[in-house]
Amino acid sequence: MNIDMIRAAEVRLTGQARRTPLLNSPALDEIAGRRVWVKAECLQRTGSFKFRGGWSAVSALPPEARARGVVAYSSGNHAQGVALAARGHGAPCVIIMPRDAPAVKIANTRALGAEVILYDRATEDRDQIGAQVSAGRGLTLIRPFDEPLVIAGQGTTGLEIAAQAAEAGVSEADVLVPCGGGGLSSGIALALGAEAPGLRVRTAEPQGFDDVARSLASGMIERNAALTGSICDAILTQQPGTLTFQILHRLCGPGLAVSDEACLRALALAFSHLRIVIEPGGAVALAAALAGEGIAGEDVIVVASGGNVDRDMFIDALKRFA
Amino acid sequence: MNIDMIRAAEVRLTGQARRTPLLNSPALDEIAGRRVWVKAECLQRTGSFKFRGGWSAVSALPPEARARGVVAYSSGNHAQGVALAARGHGAPCVIIMPRDAPAVKIANTRALGAEVILYDRATEDRDQIGAQVSAGRGLTLIRPFDEPLVIAGQGTTGLEIAAQAAEAGVSEADVLVPCGGGGLSSGIALALGAEAPGLRVRTAEPQGFDDVARSLASGMIERNAALTGSICDAILTQQPGTLTFQILHRLCGPGLAVSDEACLRALALAFSHLRIVIEPGGAVALAAALAGEGIAGEDVIVVASGGNVDRDMFIDALKRFA
Repeated sequence: MNIDMIRAAEVRLTGQARRTPLLNSPALDEIAGRRVWVKAECLQRTGSFKFRGGWSAVSALPPEARARGVVAYSSGNHAQGVALAARGHGAPCVIIMPRDAPAVKIANTRALGAEVILYDRATEDRDQIGAQVSAGRGLTLIRPFDEPLVIAGQGTTGLEIAAQAAEAGVSEADVLVPCGGGGLSSGIALALGAEAPGLRVRTAEPQGFDDVARSLASGMIERNAALTGSICDAILTQQPGTLTFQILHRLCGPGLAVSDEACLRALALAFSHLRIVIEPGGAVALAAALAGEGIAGEDVIVVASGGNVDRDMFIDALKRFA
Repeated sequence: MNIDMIRAAEVRLTGQARRTPLLNSPALDEIAGRRVWVKAECLQRTGSFKFRGGWSAVSALPPEARARGVVAYSSGNHAQGVALAARGHGAPCVIIMPRDAPAVKIANTRALGAEVILYDRATEDRDQIGAQVSAGRGLTLIRPFDEPLVIAGQGTTGLEIAAQAAEAGVSEADVLVPCGGGGLSSGIALALGAEAPGLRVRTAEPQGFDDVARSLASGMIERNAALTGSICDAILTQQPGTLTFQILHRLCGPGLAVSDEACLRALALAFSHLRIVIEPGGAVALAAALAGEGIAGEDVIVVASGGNVDRDMFIDALKRFA
């Protein structure tokens, strides 16, 4: 896994992924006490960075494999990213989702042309269903983060950050990245390590689900005690990936963690001052930047990684903090 | 007023105005029955295209005039655009606002470093106050739309649309533009006339306040009967400007008008499918594209001109239409 794979993914993504803008606002700078730069990946196709990894993986398949199709497990952003990437290649796509996933997410995934297979979390084993479907139809599994081609795709976000930070005159800063399994943060860390060594990735997670921060501190993979209990559903994972953790451990500063409350406030401030829609899990990095604890320097860069937020959650955040 | 002035403004705006993205979404295409491309000027600095015109005008002032400062009348987006442009040049800035303007807008304008002078709509004459301030301090008045340097700045949006449409493979389409006094639509029309003749500007206005559509139909400047009664406050003007109407009349197709209801729905759909925040007046063009009446062709381009929306208005739109 190296920078050349990210550069190759960038070539495959040209004209497909959006070069999302790097936004800022005097009001946010004021709150944070330093300049805050927001890489708005919520404006990416399908509403999150996951499209990059999906497209990177599907576009790298040999033609025969692509013609047979792909399969992914996800109830959220990875599902939509892979589904649109598959559709763009005319590749069949199966997404395996829990039957109790929000109806709107199931509908969105179907609207992107994917075949959705629902399973019952209590009585069925999704890995078994996936293996069956995959073997029976010869589908290629697209893993959500611990997969070099996916990391390479997410890493293209880092190439853009390097170029956009240089344009903005920023050469030294922490780059805070919302972190679940570590695909996005490890990809960005690799890209910045090669292109902008003064920019250092810091992972951002929900308090109580800071497996990556604890893993970075201990030097070995730590697990979360639970997988529910935060509104940041998009980034709740059991533990970092083997490959992603290797990269994060080598390249990142200490991890950060923020409260759900701070995420909702960040989401409301992004509404007022940046006019973008962020989901709670996509707002952890901005929340950490606004809190400022453990951050130094004149500038901080944050990734707003996704914008697929439930309407009522968004309204609640606006009522409380906008 | 010609394309060279817009190209010159583009040079002055480089590194200052954002090149806002051209967004799209399969879900919106489905609703509209054709591909819908959204130029997200709500992501511009200060939350609307007005920053372009403000910067264009302030940056073109001779150094002595700039050092004395600028003045503008506005309770909204023009105020913030001019205030930030002036601050960027170290130029003093006075904004004349009605005392009953929303407190948040007054606070935002002050936060951008402007001196705000409040007047009483019922008993005071803002032109008189403006003339006094301007003469006494030697300030240059930045008019909101009927001013070549301002039109040139807004027109840079059109240069970007021409380039971005070409990248997306779109060479023939109507370009729907929210229209108040006509600064943005006339600037874009000039830019497209020179750079992308297959793209034709159509103005979009609130129903009942369609002075520009009626003016285009009759061939002479028509006025609105009232200046209140639509939620699209940002684009309610008495009549098109003399200069802007001349340009619009020469270059635009028939004007479009949409209901407040359609704007709120467009705003909610932009939240769900584009993850951007639009204000009602900034959503008229998207609303017209989604309705589709009077529009032909495989593609339609719309400008989302601003995102400075009241929190409660936004919540109301989400509750009803998201």
